[in-house]
Amino acid sequence: MSEQNSERKATLPQAKDLSVEEQSALTSGTNPWSIGRVEGKGLPNYTITDGPHGLRKARDLDGMDVDAAVPATCFPPAAGMSSSWNPELIKKTGEAMGEECVQEQVAVILGPGVNIKRNPLGGRCFEFWSEDPYLAGHEAIGEVEGIQSKGIGTSLKHFAANNQETDRLRVNARISERAMREIYLPAFEHIIKNAQPWTVMCSYNRINGEYASQNSWLLTDVLRKEWGFKGIVMSDWGAVHDRAAALNAGLNLEMPPTHTDDKIVQAVRDGQVKPEQLEAMSQGMIDLVAKTQPAMEKGAAGYRYDVDEHDEIAREAAREAMVLLKNEDGLLPVKPGTKLAVIGEFARTPRYQGAGSSLINPNKLTSFLDALKDRGVEAEFAPGFTLDGDEQSQELTDEAVNAAESADTVLLFIGLPAEAESEGFDRTTLDIPAKQIEVLKAVSAVNKNVVVILSNGSVVSMPWADQAKSILECWLLGQAGGAATADVVFGDVNPSGKLAQTIVNNLDDDPSMLNWPGEEGHVDYGEGVFVGYRYYDSFHKAVTYPFGYGLSYTTFDISEVNAQKSGPQSVHVTAMVTNTGSMAGAEVVQVYVAPPACRVDRPVHELKAFKKVFLEPGQSQEVSFDLDSRAFAYWSERFEDWKVEGGSYGIEVGDSSRSIAQTVPVQLDDDGKRMKLTKWSTYGEWREDPDGNKILDKVISELEAKYGHAIIPDSQLIIMFLKSAPLGGMSMVLGANEAQDICERALAEYAKIGR
Amino acid sequence: MSEQNSERKATLPQAKDLSVEEQSALTSGTNPWSIGRVEGKGLPNYTITDGPHGLRKARDLDGMDVDAAVPATCFPPAAGMSSSWNPELIKKTGEAMGEECVQEQVAVILGPGVNIKRNPLGGRCFEFWSEDPYLAGHEAIGEVEGIQSKGIGTSLKHFAANNQETDRLRVNARISERAMREIYLPAFEHIIKNAQPWTVMCSYNRINGEYASQNSWLLTDVLRKEWGFKGIVMSDWGAVHDRAAALNAGLNLEMPPTHTDDKIVQAVRDGQVKPEQLEAMSQGMIDLVAKTQPAMEKGAAGYRYDVDEHDEIAREAAREAMVLLKNEDGLLPVKPGTKLAVIGEFARTPRYQGAGSSLINPNKLTSFLDALKDRGVEAEFAPGFTLDGDEQSQELTDEAVNAAESADTVLLFIGLPAEAESEGFDRTTLDIPAKQIEVLKAVSAVNKNVVVILSNGSVVSMPWADQAKSILECWLLGQAGGAATADVVFGDVNPSGKLAQTIVNNLDDDPSMLNWPGEEGHVDYGEGVFVGYRYYDSFHKAVTYPFGYGLSYTTFDISEVNAQKSGPQSVHVTAMVTNTGSMAGAEVVQVYVAPPACRVDRPVHELKAFKKVFLEPGQSQEVSFDLDSRAFAYWSERFEDWKVEGGSYGIEVGDSSRSIAQTVPVQLDDDGKRMKLTKWSTYGEWREDPDGNKILDKVISELEAKYGHAIIPDSQLIIMFLKSAPLGGMSMVLGANEAQDICERALAEYAKIGR
Repeated sequence: MSEQNSERKATLPQAKDLSVEEQSALTSGTNPWSIGRVEGKGLPNYTITDGPHGLRKARDLDGMDVDAAVPATCFPPAAGMSSSWNPELIKKTGEAMGEECVQEQVAVILGPGVNIKRNPLGGRCFEFWSEDPYLAGHEAIGEVEGIQSKGIGTSLKHFAANNQETDRLRVNARISERAMREIYLPAFEHIIKNAQPWTVMCSYNRINGEYASQNSWLLTDVLRKEWGFKGIVMSDWGAVHDRAAALNAGLNLEMPPTHTDDKIVQAVRDGQVKPEQLEAMSQGMIDLVAKTQPAMEKGAAGYRYDVDEHDEIAREAAREAMVLLKNEDGLLPVKPGTKLAVIGEFARTPRYQGAGSSLINPNKLTSFLDALKDRGVEAEFAPGFTLDGDEQSQELTDEAVNAAESADTVLLFIGLPAEAESEGFDRTTLDIPAKQIEVLKAVSAVNKNVVVILSNGSVVSMPWADQAKSILECWLLGQAGGAATADVVFGDVNPSGKLAQTIVNNLDDDPSMLNWPGEEGHVDYGEGVFVGYRYYDSFHKAVTYPFGYGLSYTTFDISEVNAQKSGPQSVHVTAMVTNTGSMAGAEVVQVYVAPPACRVDRPVHELKAFKKVFLEPGQSQEVSFDLDSRAFAYWSERFEDWKVEGGSYGIEVGDSSRSIAQTVPVQLDDDGKRMKLTKWSTYGEWREDPDGNKILDKVISELEAKYGHAIIPDSQLIIMFLKSAPLGGMSMVLGANEAQDICERALAEYAKIGR
Repeated sequence: MSEQNSERKATLPQAKDLSVEEQSALTSGTNPWSIGRVEGKGLPNYTITDGPHGLRKARDLDGMDVDAAVPATCFPPAAGMSSSWNPELIKKTGEAMGEECVQEQVAVILGPGVNIKRNPLGGRCFEFWSEDPYLAGHEAIGEVEGIQSKGIGTSLKHFAANNQETDRLRVNARISERAMREIYLPAFEHIIKNAQPWTVMCSYNRINGEYASQNSWLLTDVLRKEWGFKGIVMSDWGAVHDRAAALNAGLNLEMPPTHTDDKIVQAVRDGQVKPEQLEAMSQGMIDLVAKTQPAMEKGAAGYRYDVDEHDEIAREAAREAMVLLKNEDGLLPVKPGTKLAVIGEFARTPRYQGAGSSLINPNKLTSFLDALKDRGVEAEFAPGFTLDGDEQSQELTDEAVNAAESADTVLLFIGLPAEAESEGFDRTTLDIPAKQIEVLKAVSAVNKNVVVILSNGSVVSMPWADQAKSILECWLLGQAGGAATADVVFGDVNPSGKLAQTIVNNLDDDPSMLNWPGEEGHVDYGEGVFVGYRYYDSFHKAVTYPFGYGLSYTTFDISEVNAQKSGPQSVHVTAMVTNTGSMAGAEVVQVYVAPPACRVDRPVHELKAFKKVFLEPGQSQEVSFDLDSRAFAYWSERFEDWKVEGGSYGIEVGDSSRSIAQTVPVQLDDDGKRMKLTKWSTYGEWREDPDGNKILDKVISELEAKYGHAIIPDSQLIIMFLKSAPLGGMSMVLGANEAQDICERALAEYAKIGR
C-alpha cells in the first residue's frame, strides 16, 4: 500500500500550495462528521465517526442527531474487552472495525479512549480500559493496530485527564506532573510511540489551568516533541474555545466546525497565528487524507465486510471478557442434565453497551435466552424485575422464587440498567438497584445453587456476594454477549478474564473520593499516583476482588520464576506456567515490579508486563518478559525526566496484584542522573553527592585554617538542622560570615568540576 | 500605661526622620537575638527570644549556641496545654511568661506556634495545638493575651503552612486556597483579628511556589489588608532568601541579620524597593520598640517575678492537660492504702518538654517520684527500661515484674524518649519503643491492675491498650508535671483534658499519608480540608480515641440542647450540662456544625464552639454559644470569599466528635452571593439562577419564533449534555447558529439587568 499511497499523495496538493483561506478551511471540519474538503483543489470530503467498540455512523451526516446510525457490529465495550488481557484478540476486533469503516467509507473512527478509571463512579468507565495505564496502553494498542492495518485512522482519546463526566467540558484538573506522567499519560504514550495512531482527540477539560485544546505543553511539547507523534490532533466536539490559541498550541482540527475560518485568516494577518504554524497544521490534515484515501476508494468501489464473521469475532471477544469471580462447589460450568431456572430481565433484554457517543446500532443481537434456544436447552425463565422504576413487583418476585424452587441451579442475571451509566454524568452509587438484590435474596432463600451473572459497565458493590455460590462478571459484552455467556456457562469455553479494575469494598476507602468529582470548576487529583490497586495494595486496604483477579474452570501453577539483570536498568524474567487442572484454559501471567525505598513515595508495586497463555490440561509453558528501564522508573519533577534509582527491585510474578506466586529480587544500578548542586541544595544533599562531599571537606578545612576554629559546631542538633538547610541559607545555624564563606567557596569549587 | 507609652513614643524618632541607611538597619536584627538599635537616634537594642511555653533566653546573646539558657518556668508545651480546652488557664500561663520576660528584659517571646497537626508524624506536633484550627486559635489566643497584658510582644508563628519538619526550609507546600482558608489560616486569623499579636513570624517554606518570607499575598493581602494586622512580620531564623523581595512583600524584619543593609540601600536607589515601603516596614519596628519600652524599663529597674508562684501556675496548667483515656474498674484515682508499684524510668526522669528551639532550662523540676516523696506516699519503684538503646535488659524486666507481683496496682510510666521527637525531623512511626511495651506485657501478665501513664509530645499508637485497665495520657507537662500527675493519680484533682488530636488506629487510614512528607522539594496537600477528624468522621474510619474525647472521675450529662436562628446566618445555642457523678469536675461542652449538602464537598461536621464548665456533684449549668456566619461558611474559590449556602444545618452538642448528645437542625438563609453568569457558565447554571432561567426562557422562545422550529432537541441525552455545556460552547450539541444566537442574546439580556 505504501507505493500506492505515495503515488496518490502526488495527486493531492501540499499545504504550501494552498491559500491561507484554504489552509484555514482544512483546520475545521467540512461538516459535523466530515473533514478535509477544499473545493477545487482535489481534496475530498471524508467522513469520521464515533466508536470505539464499533462504528457509529450517523445516517444524516450534516446533523447532530446521533440516534439513527447505520448498523454495525457491536463489539464488547472496553470495560469487557479490557478484562481479556489479550491484545491479539483486541487487534482482531480492530481489524473487523477497520473493515466496517472501509465499507462505510469512514476515514477515521473516534477511539479508543484510554483515560484512566480514576474512580469507579466515573460515568464513562464502561468505555475506558483500566485503572492501570500499562494495561490500558498495552490492550488498546491492539485496537489501533487492527483498525489502522485496514487503512483507516483511529483517534486516541481523550487527551488528556478526562476522567470524569461531571463538569467535564470545563473542569480544571489540577494534577501533579508526576501523576500525569505515571498515571494519566502512559497509555497514550505507549500507543503513540508504538502504533502511531493517525489522530489524537484532545479532551474538553483544562489541565492545570489550560484547556487541553489550547495546551501547547500537552499537544506540542509532550505529544510531538517528546513522543514523536506524526499525526493530527482534533478537538473533542466543541472543545475549542479559542481557535487561534488552539492552532498555536498544536491542534490541527476543530470539530464540529464553527465556520470561523475568516477569523483565522485575520489572525494570520494580525500575526496572532504564524503562517508556518497554520501551514503545518493544515499539512497534517492533507497527510491524513492521503493516508486514508486508498481505503476510502476501496469502499467507494463497493467493498463489503462479512457480517456473520464479524459477529463471530464479537462472540469470541465476549468469551474472553467475562471474569469468573467466585465458583463454589464448581457450580459452573452447568453440568448436562441440570434443571435450570433463568431469572432476570437481562437474560431476555441484554445490556450490552453503554450510552452516549459510543452507542452502536448492532447488526445482530443475541440474548442469553436466544442462545439457550439456539442450543436447544430448556430452562424456566422468570424476568424477576423490570429494568425501569425503583419499586419491586411482588408478583415478579414470587414468579422468580417459584422458578428457583423447582430448579437444580438458578442463573440469575442482574446488573445496571442502561440509564445507570452513560457518557454525560457520573454515577453516585456503586450499588445495583435494590429491587434486584431483593430478588437475589428471595431466590437464594429457596435455592442455594445461585449463579449471579452480572451486566454492568463499571464496578458494582457486592455486599450480597455470600448469597451466590458463583459470580460471573460479564461487564458489557456487545452484540454476541448472550451466545458467549452461554458458551462459558455451559463450559464450551473456559473463562479467562481478569479484572482490569479493583472491585472495592467501600468507596470511603478510595482516596480519590476526597476530591471527587471536584467543585467550583476544578478537581484536585490529591491522591497523586495512588490510583486503584496502587493505593489499595500500598495502604493495605481490604478489597472485594483485587486487580488482575479472575478464576478459571481449571487451575494453574506459576513456578520457576527467574529474574536476571540484563542491563544496568533492565531485567529479563522467565517463569513456568502449568495447567494443573483437567480442562483447557488460559492464565494471565502478571509481572509487578516492587521498588526499593526511593526519594519519592512509590506504590508497593506496579504492573509492568503480562502474558496470556492458553494451555491444555497438564501442559506447561515458559513465558518470558523483558523489562526495560521504564519498568523501574518514576517521574522526577526535579529532573523533569524519568529516574531509576539504584537498589533492589522485587520482580513479582503472579495471577493478580494480591496473588504473587514468587518474588525475585534484582539489584539494579542507579541511572546516574544526579541533581545539579546549587545554593538551594541542602548541606545534606551536598554531603550525599560524592563530588559535593569532597568539596565540603576541602572548603571547611580551609576555612577552619582561616578562622582558627571549628566551623561546624559539635552539636547533634545543629548538624541535624544543617542537613536540611540550603547551602545558601546556613546562617540559620552557623555564623553569617562562615555560612557565606562555605557557600561561596563550595559553589566556586563545584563550578570548576563543571557538572 | 498608655499615657506613659505615648509620652515615651515622643522620645523615639519616626521612620520618616531616619536616613535610608538607618531605616534599612531597622529591618534586620541588631544581632541574632536582638532588634531595633539605631546608633545615635535613641532607638534601643531589645532582646527577643524563643518560646513558646516559657522563656528560652540564651546567656550569650551574640552567638547561636542555644544550649545554655537563663532559667525560666517551663509550662506545659502546647501538646499538653491544648488538651485543657481552657483559654483562661492558658492566658494565666501567658501572664506568667510575660512577667518572666519583663524580668529578663525580653521584648518579644517567639510564640505561640499555631500550625496545624496535619499528620501525627509531624516532628513539631508537641509545640503545636491541634488538628483543628478553631480549637488552636481559641486556645493559643490566651497565651497571646496573657503575655501582651504584661507589655511584652508575642510572635504568632509560623505563618504559614509549616506543618512538617522534612525539608521545611525549602519545601513548596502546594495547597488549595480552600484548604488554606479553612484549615491552615483560621487559627492565625482568629488571633490576629481578636488579639493583635505585636509580631508574626513567617515560616521557612514556600506556599504554592513562593517563599512565605516574600509572599505578598500572605503577608500583605491577607494578613494586613484582609485581617487588619497592625504589627510587624519577622522572618523565621534564616527564612529570608531575597531581602528586597521580602521587604516588598511586607516583611519588616530579617532574622538573624545577614549584614546586608547596604544592599537594601542600593535596592532603594535602584527602584527595586520603594522608599515608602522601606519607611513603612521600618516604622513598624519603631512602633514595636515603643510598645515594649515600658516593660523593658520596668525590667531594667529590677522587677522580679515570683518563681514559686509560677511553678504553681505550671502545676495548675499541667493538671488540666492530662487526658484520661480509659479507666476500667475505676482503678484511678488510687485509693488510700493501695500498695503501689511505680514502674518506668519516666517516673524518675520526666519527659516534660520537646527538643529544638523551644527547649527551656527549667527553674525547678519535679518528677513523679519526687511528688510521691512530697506526699509521703510509699511505693516500690523499678525503672523497667532505660531511655536509650533499643535492647531491653532482662534484669530490668525481672525487677519490674517482681515489683508488680507484690503490688495492688501498678503505675507504669511509658512514652517517647527525648530523641524520638524534636524540631528538625519528622517521626517515622507512632510506636512507643518496643522494649517498653515488652515491660507492659510482662507486668500485665502478673498484675491486672495496670495504669499506663504516658509521656509523649505527639500521638502514639496504642495496640497494647487492652493490657492496661487505665490509661492517662499526660503528653508533656512542663516542669511541674510530676506533682500534677500525682494530683490526678491520687484524686486531688479530677482529670478534665480532652483530645486536641485524634488518636488513630492506623496511619494507613490517614489521607495525608499519600503526600507525606512530600518529595523533591514539594508537598501536595492532596487531602484538602479533610484533616484529622474532618476525615475520620466523614469517611467513617475507626479510630482509637476520637477528637475531643476524655474521661473524668465523675460523669456528666448534656441535655436540653436548644438551637435557634438568631440572624439569617447565625444561631444561638444553649444546653444544660450536669455533673451526674459524685466528684467535682469539669466537662467540655463541644458544638459541632453539620452542613447540608453544598456545592462543595464538606466534612460531616466541624467544631465551631466549646466551653469548659466546672461543676460540683449534682450541679447543673446552662451554657450558651453564639455561632456567627463563619460557623456555617466554606471558602469558595469561585467567589474568593466565604460562602454560606441556605439549608438545614445540624447543631451537634456533645463531649467528643463521636459522642454527640443531641443534634438540633436549624434552617439558615443563603447569604445571597450568586455567581455572575457568563458565557463560561453552563446552561445548567443559567437555568439554576432565577434571572438566568427567565432570560433563557425568553431568548429561546424568541429564537423559536425566528427559526420556526424547536431549538432544544426533545432528547434527554441532549438536555443532559447541554446542562454541563458552557453557554458559549453549546455547539457541541446544538446547531452552530442556534448555539451562538442563544449565547449572544442571553448575555445581552443579562447585561441589561446589570448583575
